[in-house]
Amino acid sequence: MKEIRFFYVPEAGKVQELPTEEATHALRVLRMRTGDEMYLMDGQGVFYHAEVGMTTNKKCFYHIRETLPQEKTWRGRIHLAIAPTKMMDRIEWMVEKATEVGVDEISFLNCKFSERQQIRIDRIEKIVVSAMKQSRKAWKPVVNEMTDFTSFINTSRQGTKFIAHCYQEFKRDDLFRELQQLDVDEDVTVLVGPEGDFSADEVKLALTRGYRSISLGNSRLRTETAGLMAVTMAQITKRKE
Amino acid sequence: MKEIRFFYVPEAGKVQELPTEEATHALRVLRMRTGDEMYLMDGQGVFYHAEVGMTTNKKCFYHIRETLPQEKTWRGRIHLAIAPTKMMDRIEWMVEKATEVGVDEISFLNCKFSERQQIRIDRIEKIVVSAMKQSRKAWKPVVNEMTDFTSFINTSRQGTKFIAHCYQEFKRDDLFRELQQLDVDEDVTVLVGPEGDFSADEVKLALTRGYRSISLGNSRLRTETAGLMAVTMAQITKRKE
Repeated sequence: MKEIRFFYVPEAGKVQELPTEEATHALRVLRMRTGDEMYLMDGQGVFYHAEVGMTTNKKCFYHIRETLPQEKTWRGRIHLAIAPTKMMDRIEWMVEKATEVGVDEISFLNCKFSERQQIRIDRIEKIVVSAMKQSRKAWKPVVNEMTDFTSFINTSRQGTKFIAHCYQEFKRDDLFRELQQLDVDEDVTVLVGPEGDFSADEVKLALTRGYRSISLGNSRLRTETAGLMAVTMAQITKRKE
Repeated sequence: MKEIRFFYVPEAGKVQELPTEEATHALRVLRMRTGDEMYLMDGQGVFYHAEVGMTTNKKCFYHIRETLPQEKTWRGRIHLAIAPTKMMDRIEWMVEKATEVGVDEISFLNCKFSERQQIRIDRIEKIVVSAMKQSRKAWKPVVNEMTDFTSFINTSRQGTKFIAHCYQEFKRDDLFRELQQLDVDEDVTVLVGPEGDFSADEVKLALTRGYRSISLGNSRLRTETAGLMAVTMAQITKRKE
């Protein structure tokens, strides 16, 4: 049985040619030839069944055989905003896993106790695209540039907003229970802090902006594990049958 | 504020000396001295508040000030049996994350389509201990040597047993919903297959041994993500308030 190959082609329905990197992969690595079958994903909800058309040394054209609109497998939008970890590989695996599990948007926060102020969004994008292809997600998660905490929470957002933190002095509800009580179509945003947590002032500020104070359970989780836990909880409560 | 240091000392209540590696870490890296405070975890449910006693070049003795029995934070035992991935780093992070999230036992399966037949249990043990310390788990997850699939499923086990797979021809129930319907104190074992899944014969055999056929949802998950998802679902349904 020949393996089905998926390629990420933004605007796949409008162009007739694989993007450079995907073309190189198709021609050099997979050695695909005219007439070979392939699937294209536009990252916006549509798969295309296609076949390789003309090829040159570096270019790979295609013909679309069939347009296959996909249905979203969960309800509402899941947005994770997280302070990147000091070790880049930890946040990278979180991004890969969150994409596999199912997330709509990932933002990176620059907080008072952040151990990393910069992040290479091009690397993150590559990981997201690769995980999206591997797990056959029809929608590419949106990845946002690093934002200051204050500017992030001052931006108005649809849906219900949560801030996960470890301060005992602010009453914290359990995220999973809160999610179960929401309308399933409700959009959610969850904030996860850096290794040293949000500052108490950041938590207070978020509360004044309508963020709900939550806990992810009684386990002491690393930042990247907390991020994935938040996405997983949202996914479990929002996925379709 | 001085950071609280945790050390893993099996039988901490019976011996009076840190194991070699922990002693090196305490003396060489943390430069701890006589009278310094420390916490010991025996991996069997007890923390000890202790202080450094006599030290030599390589040895670190301690006095216990207080014995602090811990309460388990979830009900029933969670056992994950998984085929290790071809890439060792993938199964290693899964082990780290499963320990953080909360698991009681991890077994490794040698299956028909396994891409890895051997695993260095000493490396896995180190990762488990490190994650247990980092996440302050009072119980060390049990780690078992690689076992053949058939011999694993022929061993009788307490509680409810599940096998996660991707075959459409066997009816699959949703693991999360099944877990929610169990008595919260029930022990659970979940089997997760290799990159190429279990063979159909392996699934059939498991069904005859009382394993229930389950799915982890409608996402296409990598082996290591599936393992963590199973543990997370069990944890969410079994954790105490």
